[in-house]
Amino acid sequence: MNNEATATAVDTPPARTRGRGRRPADEVRADVLRAVGDVLLAEGIADLTFERVARLSGVSKTTLYKWWPSKGALALDGYFHAVQDRLAFPDTGDVRADLLEQLHAFVRLMTTTPGGRILTELIGEAQTDKELATAYRSLYSSERRRLAAERLRSAQEAGQLRDDVDVQVVVDQLWGAVYHRLLVPDEPVTGAFVEALVGNLLGGISSD
Amino acid sequence: MNNEATATAVDTPPARTRGRGRRPADEVRADVLRAVGDVLLAEGIADLTFERVARLSGVSKTTLYKWWPSKGALALDGYFHAVQDRLAFPDTGDVRADLLEQLHAFVRLMTTTPGGRILTELIGEAQTDKELATAYRSLYSSERRRLAAERLRSAQEAGQLRDDVDVQVVVDQLWGAVYHRLLVPDEPVTGAFVEALVGNLLGGISSD
Repeated sequence: MNNEATATAVDTPPARTRGRGRRPADEVRADVLRAVGDVLLAEGIADLTFERVARLSGVSKTTLYKWWPSKGALALDGYFHAVQDRLAFPDTGDVRADLLEQLHAFVRLMTTTPGGRILTELIGEAQTDKELATAYRSLYSSERRRLAAERLRSAQEAGQLRDDVDVQVVVDQLWGAVYHRLLVPDEPVTGAFVEALVGNLLGGISSD
Repeated sequence: MNNEATATAVDTPPARTRGRGRRPADEVRADVLRAVGDVLLAEGIADLTFERVARLSGVSKTTLYKWWPSKGALALDGYFHAVQDRLAFPDTGDVRADLLEQLHAFVRLMTTTPGGRILTELIGEAQTDKELATAYRSLYSSERRRLAAERLRSAQEAGQLRDDVDVQVVVDQLWGAVYHRLLVPDEPVTGAFVEALVGNLLGGISSD
């Protein structure tokens, strides 16, 4: 990154940065999201401020506020992009193995990085903050749901899951069950829990 | 209730109420919890104050604070007792029918009374309030879990559920899945959702 351009972008309103040296908005946004993701996964949400993101990304606070109206929105967008690769859904054709792999990665992220704390605090705050609730769904959960549902539907097409199963309900019985233990920690979130979730749901718990 | 005794209990410290007319503590606690439950289910948690509960139950605020150190603890204890009968676990010997009946009652309570809002706000606040998190678990969720697990174990003993199933995981895949939709409302909490939860888990979603 060009240091001079960075300094200018931080210190002046966006109008002043128009001109020859201006980078495409998409590139600038990606830089910001990268900076946000780095702070979140290294330190958590308490240390995330617009000031700090402006400094790290070389983008003015005015521009940041224009794109992300609240710290919650900025955090959710940055977090989504930071964990996208780690939470990718493999498709090897074996739905049990693929679900286990993705769920184990998800649980590791939730329990060994600030990820779990970030999401549970945002979900918590969203219960009494309507704007944050909307941001949570539009910038994070609905897209995670869509990606999970996509993998489950491909398993239905491959004849591995029953056709009459509503895949959105499966999302609640796998990832939703993990969130439940993260939010109300009566029982631990472990690898054995992941195995039991997948085992129970694929094979059923009835003894018939 | 004796009005004169009530006025005395509200207006004087507990030491002054000792003597002939004093009721057993258990009875007084039950009155308080009933008053709390009435307020919560009729109006929600915003209208619950120690002042109001003291007035309604005829118990001094000093005594209330001695028994319940925070509004969250008071609300959770009152709510637990208020919904206990409605959330009872039937045991007719048919685990599918019994789970459906209890889960439908639970979903009705969550969606047609202030119950859902009360619990999601308390869970939300508990994410950043350690004392409330402890109160939530000790006064509400751990006991609800115990009751659900008891019914599931009786189904294992009756040979209806597989012996190797960890019933605590089932709790997360049924009630936990409902809480997930209440807390992150990407998808609706309906009767059809309840049927799908039980159907998926008892029969399994695999097409093998």
